Amino acid sequence: MARNIKVEELLQTPIEKQRIELVERKGIGHPDSISDGLAEAVSRALCREYISKCGTVLHHNTDETQIVAGRSSPEFGGGEVLQPIYMLLVGRATKEFEGVELATESVALQAARNYLRKTMVNMDLERDVIMDCKLGTGSSDLREVFKRDRVPVANDTSFGVGHAPFSELENIVYNTERQLLTDLKSRMPAIGEDMKVMGLRDGEDITLTICSGMIGRYVDDLDSYINMTQEMKTYVKELATRYTERDVNVYINTGDNLKTSCIFLTVTGTSAEMGDDGSVGRGNRCNGLITPNRPMSMEATSGKNPINHIGKIYNLLSTQMARDIVKQVPEVQDVYIRLLSQIAKPIDQPLVASAQIIPKEGTSFEKVKSEAEVVIDDWLSNVTKITEMVIRGELNTF
Amino acid sequence: MARNIKVEELLQTPIEKQRIELVERKGIGHPDSISDGLAEAVSRALCREYISKCGTVLHHNTDETQIVAGRSSPEFGGGEVLQPIYMLLVGRATKEFEGVELATESVALQAARNYLRKTMVNMDLERDVIMDCKLGTGSSDLREVFKRDRVPVANDTSFGVGHAPFSELENIVYNTERQLLTDLKSRMPAIGEDMKVMGLRDGEDITLTICSGMIGRYVDDLDSYINMTQEMKTYVKELATRYTERDVNVYINTGDNLKTSCIFLTVTGTSAEMGDDGSVGRGNRCNGLITPNRPMSMEATSGKNPINHIGKIYNLLSTQMARDIVKQVPEVQDVYIRLLSQIAKPIDQPLVASAQIIPKEGTSFEKVKSEAEVVIDDWLSNVTKITEMVIRGELNTF
Amino acid sequence: MARNIKVEELLQTPIEKQRIELVERKGIGHPDSISDGLAEAVSRALCREYISKCGTVLHHNTDETQIVAGRSSPEFGGGEVLQPIYMLLVGRATKEFEGVELATESVALQAARNYLRKTMVNMDLERDVIMDCKLGTGSSDLREVFKRDRVPVANDTSFGVGHAPFSELENIVYNTERQLLTDLKSRMPAIGEDMKVMGLRDGEDITLTICSGMIGRYVDDLDSYINMTQEMKTYVKELATRYTERDVNVYINTGDNLKTSCIFLTVTGTSAEMGDDGSVGRGNRCNGLITPNRPMSMEATSGKNPINHIGKIYNLLSTQMARDIVKQVPEVQDVYIRLLSQIAKPIDQPLVASAQIIPKEGTSFEKVKSEAEVVIDDWLSNVTKITEMVIRGELNTF
Amino acid sequence: MARNIKVEELLQTPIEKQRIELVERKGIGHPDSISDGLAEAVSRALCREYISKCGTVLHHNTDETQIVAGRSSPEFGGGEVLQPIYMLLVGRATKEFEGVELATESVALQAARNYLRKTMVNMDLERDVIMDCKLGTGSSDLREVFKRDRVPVANDTSFGVGHAPFSELENIVYNTERQLLTDLKSRMPAIGEDMKVMGLRDGEDITLTICSGMIGRYVDDLDSYINMTQEMKTYVKELATRYTERDVNVYINTGDNLKTSCIFLTVTGTSAEMGDDGSVGRGNRCNGLITPNRPMSMEATSGKNPINHIGKIYNLLSTQMARDIVKQVPEVQDVYIRLLSQIAKPIDQPLVASAQIIPKEGTSFEKVKSEAEVVIDDWLSNVTKITEMVIRGELNTF
Repeated sequence: MARNIKVEELLQTPIEKQRIELVERKGIGHPDSISDGLAEAVSRALCREYISKCGTVLHHNTDETQIVAGRSSPEFGGGEVLQPIYMLLVGRATKEFEGVELATESVALQAARNYLRKTMVNMDLERDVIMDCKLGTGSSDLREVFKRDRVPVANDTSFGVGHAPFSELENIVYNTERQLLTDLKSRMPAIGEDMKVMGLRDGEDITLTICSGMIGRYVDDLDSYINMTQEMKTYVKELATRYTERDVNVYINTGDNLKTSCIFLTVTGTSAEMGDDGSVGRGNRCNGLITPNRPMSMEATSGKNPINHIGKIYNLLSTQMARDIVKQVPEVQDVYIRLLSQIAKPIDQPLVASAQIIPKEGTSFEKVKSEAEVVIDDWLSNVTKITEMVIRGELNTF
Repeated sequence: MARNIKVEELLQTPIEKQRIELVERKGIGHPDSISDGLAEAVSRALCREYISKCGTVLHHNTDETQIVAGRSSPEFGGGEVLQPIYMLLVGRATKEFEGVELATESVALQAARNYLRKTMVNMDLERDVIMDCKLGTGSSDLREVFKRDRVPVANDTSFGVGHAPFSELENIVYNTERQLLTDLKSRMPAIGEDMKVMGLRDGEDITLTICSGMIGRYVDDLDSYINMTQEMKTYVKELATRYTERDVNVYINTGDNLKTSCIFLTVTGTSAEMGDDGSVGRGNRCNGLITPNRPMSMEATSGKNPINHIGKIYNLLSTQMARDIVKQVPEVQDVYIRLLSQIAKPIDQPLVASAQIIPKEGTSFEKVKSEAEVVIDDWLSNVTKITEMVIRGELNTF
Repeated sequence: MARNIKVEELLQTPIEKQRIELVERKGIGHPDSISDGLAEAVSRALCREYISKCGTVLHHNTDETQIVAGRSSPEFGGGEVLQPIYMLLVGRATKEFEGVELATESVALQAARNYLRKTMVNMDLERDVIMDCKLGTGSSDLREVFKRDRVPVANDTSFGVGHAPFSELENIVYNTERQLLTDLKSRMPAIGEDMKVMGLRDGEDITLTICSGMIGRYVDDLDSYINMTQEMKTYVKELATRYTERDVNVYINTGDNLKTSCIFLTVTGTSAEMGDDGSVGRGNRCNGLITPNRPMSMEATSGKNPINHIGKIYNLLSTQMARDIVKQVPEVQDVYIRLLSQIAKPIDQPLVASAQIIPKEGTSFEKVKSEAEVVIDDWLSNVTKITEMVIRGELNTF
Repeated sequence: MARNIKVEELLQTPIEKQRIELVERKGIGHPDSISDGLAEAVSRALCREYISKCGTVLHHNTDETQIVAGRSSPEFGGGEVLQPIYMLLVGRATKEFEGVELATESVALQAARNYLRKTMVNMDLERDVIMDCKLGTGSSDLREVFKRDRVPVANDTSFGVGHAPFSELENIVYNTERQLLTDLKSRMPAIGEDMKVMGLRDGEDITLTICSGMIGRYVDDLDSYINMTQEMKTYVKELATRYTERDVNVYINTGDNLKTSCIFLTVTGTSAEMGDDGSVGRGNRCNGLITPNRPMSMEATSGKNPINHIGKIYNLLSTQMARDIVKQVPEVQDVYIRLLSQIAKPIDQPLVASAQIIPKEGTSFEKVKSEAEVVIDDWLSNVTKITEMVIRGELNTF
């Protein structure tokens, strides 16, 4: 059956020429990102468990982790968590399959604790965290879907969106968090994983406002703290020059009051230790960013099953399609993808697959159109490739 | 101090002329909407309690309700919930103020139960729901903010967005849910509050896919069910003609399989009774819609305190600004507002207040620009009006 | 098969002649008693549900309710609960039987809330209590037991004990709580259900120390409070004369400090509102008392299934046996029953049924012995009568 | 002030001459014992934390741990926990003292996890257990008690009981569990910590019914299982000869059905993994036994603060007194101690300290009486020694 692919030319000021652009990224230790990470880690662990025990992935969705903040008393050189952070893994999973009982909650618990240990290296899992778990059983009709030997049908009427390429600001914001938490952190362990990078471009001026929860045990005193944030600032300004020739201003922890030593210090690297709750799906979209200048989907990508949960698959797929179109069709300036499913229809047959393209100046939209259609159609023909990439851990979800 | 207001002309295909448009609204009984509603009901109750006991609103944020789905066995003419829905109210609140201890958790619990009783009229609060509550205490420095006798400072670096006017499709999607659950439900009580209206406009063709959890006790049998969905379909098509002259197709519960009687029947009116979890901030934006063709913010609006939580205030404010600009400046075709705060700066002084305007054909952008600036500046001068409107319950948050 | 019934003469100072006797009763609003009451109410509701839906009682045990105290600010004329009391219903139940799914958690929740509403009349269920529920599924082999059409086999190796008759002090302590909370409370609503009556008999002097959580809304001021406790004291002294000719001293709320107005005032009638947690099985034995001068069992009686849970059945049965022996064999001064089961053996065939008897002075033990054996054997032959009495609500468990 | 010490002669058949005697001990891995152990471990850790941070023990009671059983699939050679055991630490603690905030919940969590790791060596804390924690704050008036520089006053009207010496059966039951879980387990790791030893003495015949949750990973097959239980049986019979010359019969896991291989196998060593919930205070008394032939107290000893919680102190103290009397007054055959407090009175001044003594045949009660009084008075004069011994971990509580 021919697919309903609609490629249209979008008449619009390209992003780099719009006056105001906003881009945000929450670091992997932000309470919302921790929720996303736990949800996805649990789903991946369940996928592996299902394949190992049943030969196939069974129905599950674990996209509702809730983090309830603790209480802490951070200090230079140390500090301690007073009240543990409460993390509730929520979702549903198939607990029995053809007579085999599955250790879904135990697998979830272990996966979550492992993820946390790996990601939040200064969190003491023995005393800083209570990990709780409430997984219901999936409804039986949904479970049916997973047994069929053909393209799965959509679990919902829902849409995903994606765009490419990244703007300068998008690249800067994304890589600022990534580089601070990998490259710079390797020699400055005080940088907390709970980071928020807010980018504003006003014409040719870029302002980065960074909020970073420094880890007390690696900070001797206020001078040391000030020196570190200065070094971070220098590092980020230098980093930005790889992506732009615009002016870049960097502010770090502007909420600090140095006079009263009221600064953003943590024990564990995340503000979940002292007042900030977190949820799945409220932070970064699956491309790693929050971009009000771009179409976005409200669907959480993390924690959903990668077989038929269209809220996950179409977000990841849209992003892959957009990136491939830009790569394979050089005349494309900007492309926006929207995929809309209808419940109970095969996921390779969206109700509509829409691409909005801004061609580069002086190029023919018609040529671009047909090439883009091919990319879209190819991806839909191979939609289950997304599933495989998710299970292998090749796609980020936040 | 002059405000950083930037009004630019946006060159863009207006929404009604774009080929593909997607709009979604989750009904008030969708698990995500219930979460939003509970979160906001709790915040409003706390505001009233604080004012009554302390003369002023104190620090709180209750924007993290988590719903863990139950299990049910719906039937024509009845059915029952087998395992109650678990609802966890999460957040923080000031529990003591100048020697007065405040009944924050009890107030939250009561407000949540009252909200549910009023909203989900077929839910039996004695056996269908477990309402739990974990409210931490606010961090002391944040509490400081609330005592100051001047414009509050932003609690975070964050942005809000808004747009106006609604497109045809936006009006149709929004009012379909509203009218089905008020007007038609008054004579067809079987309509469940858990509804999802997904609108697709492909050129001149509008497709509405509606998912509605019918309430078993008011449905005698399959024939009755079919008749009701037919009547809903007719009602919606008729309703749509108030907003558009385009062709409108309506699909209701397309996931149903009438042969196997596998239909969307519920006991309580929400799928939270059988497998669908819910969270705050993952459903409708504060204008009541999810609109991937429009700028959106990821910030949850429900449950945050209306004093200094910029994620709430700037989303509500942007929407009010956009609507007022359209009302007061007739030459405006479409307007998009983005407000960006910087942590610890007064909330009437955003880092940037950006308006992108598409003027109507043949009108002067310059005139529009200055008039829009006035509207924006006026609102910022009176920013605390948003706070008051929230407390009085005059602004919806989802 | 002949039963292993062993009746022996006990040479012992009879209770009334021992120098020191201690007897305690916790009122029905004591946190431990509330736990017992909830556990038993849930079990009875499940029994009725199982009989109604499946024709027979299925496996369940709900004997582990945990109460986590709240926080309150009681006041003369009112007061309020600041943080709700958290009540967690714990246990296991059969959730599916021959294809029928059972609403075990919903039934439990409703039964618990109904019990509380009826018992704790000043508790506001909308804001003073969080009722949570975690019921696992029973292990399959245990479930087998319930299908068999013969005397059930014991679920455990366990014992129950009972004695009769009540001593003077036992009668006084038991009836003090009962009469205060029914008769006197009907005209003095301030009396809280959370009461503790501690009786000490030292030779011919009886001292009753009563702790009673008065309900603020019915107490105008300190004078009113003092008058009420005086009236209670007079009432109890008068009541005691029905059971004894010994001297009786009564102390009420001796922990009060009238100078600092630090008195035992509550909002709801139970100290669970302000710091006292509660558990099943830690309060009164199934005869309503705690009696260190008498044999006792540690087995919780409340909440266990009345079919094969020997910890429940043998405690209730021992008490019935003892009471019947005293009634039918007038020569018995004191009788102590101990019934010991062995796991997987029929419950009408205890490993040993032991009676220790102190005959009245001048009577023949041999005659007593054979009559007692008959009573014991009769009861064992009709052991399932206990089950029926429990389901009909004819036996108290605490 | 002279103390109210009452020593009376008890006329009673000594325990060894009574026809029927019952004694029970729950092993340290029984769900009730795990609850006791966690509660006490948390209290001790809080004592140490308070002393280290504040110089003195502050108010706390953590005597309400609730264990909700998980689900497991034990197998020869392995098996796994399917659903983790949920453990809820409940109680109250002082969280702030003279400006210092205390990490009570974090300390509790860590202590509980450490205790479990040490005690249940086959439990995988990463996937088999969810450790949750709800600690309220103590009521302020109670906190007052802890600051006073003199003998603390009783927190409640309550009593403790103790007896000595152990009967033959008491010694056998106690040491059977102890030796199986230390000596034999060191070479037979399959023995699970969840053990129940039920002793019945019927005249000169002793029957031990032992229930022991064998650990699957150390048991190859059914033959291996049978061999092990045989070896345990032989071991116990041999052990018993150290304490008695009576006939001893031993039954191990009599609930097993070898034909259907329905045996008592576990993954972790405790039945909490598959259906058995647990609570504090429902298992062994503080002397390690459950003894219906002896006076008992219902007060939980584990988890209560050792400063003024009379339910803990008087149980421990009574037992120490009884043991010392037996040691120091050789003419004593059996001694029973009962200590009764009155709320708000100094704990070294019980309302009554009662000793019931059965002197050895041919000895003078009067001599015994005065010597016993001295022992009792000495202990009351040094009552805080119990506190110190608890904190140093020198007294068992279950």
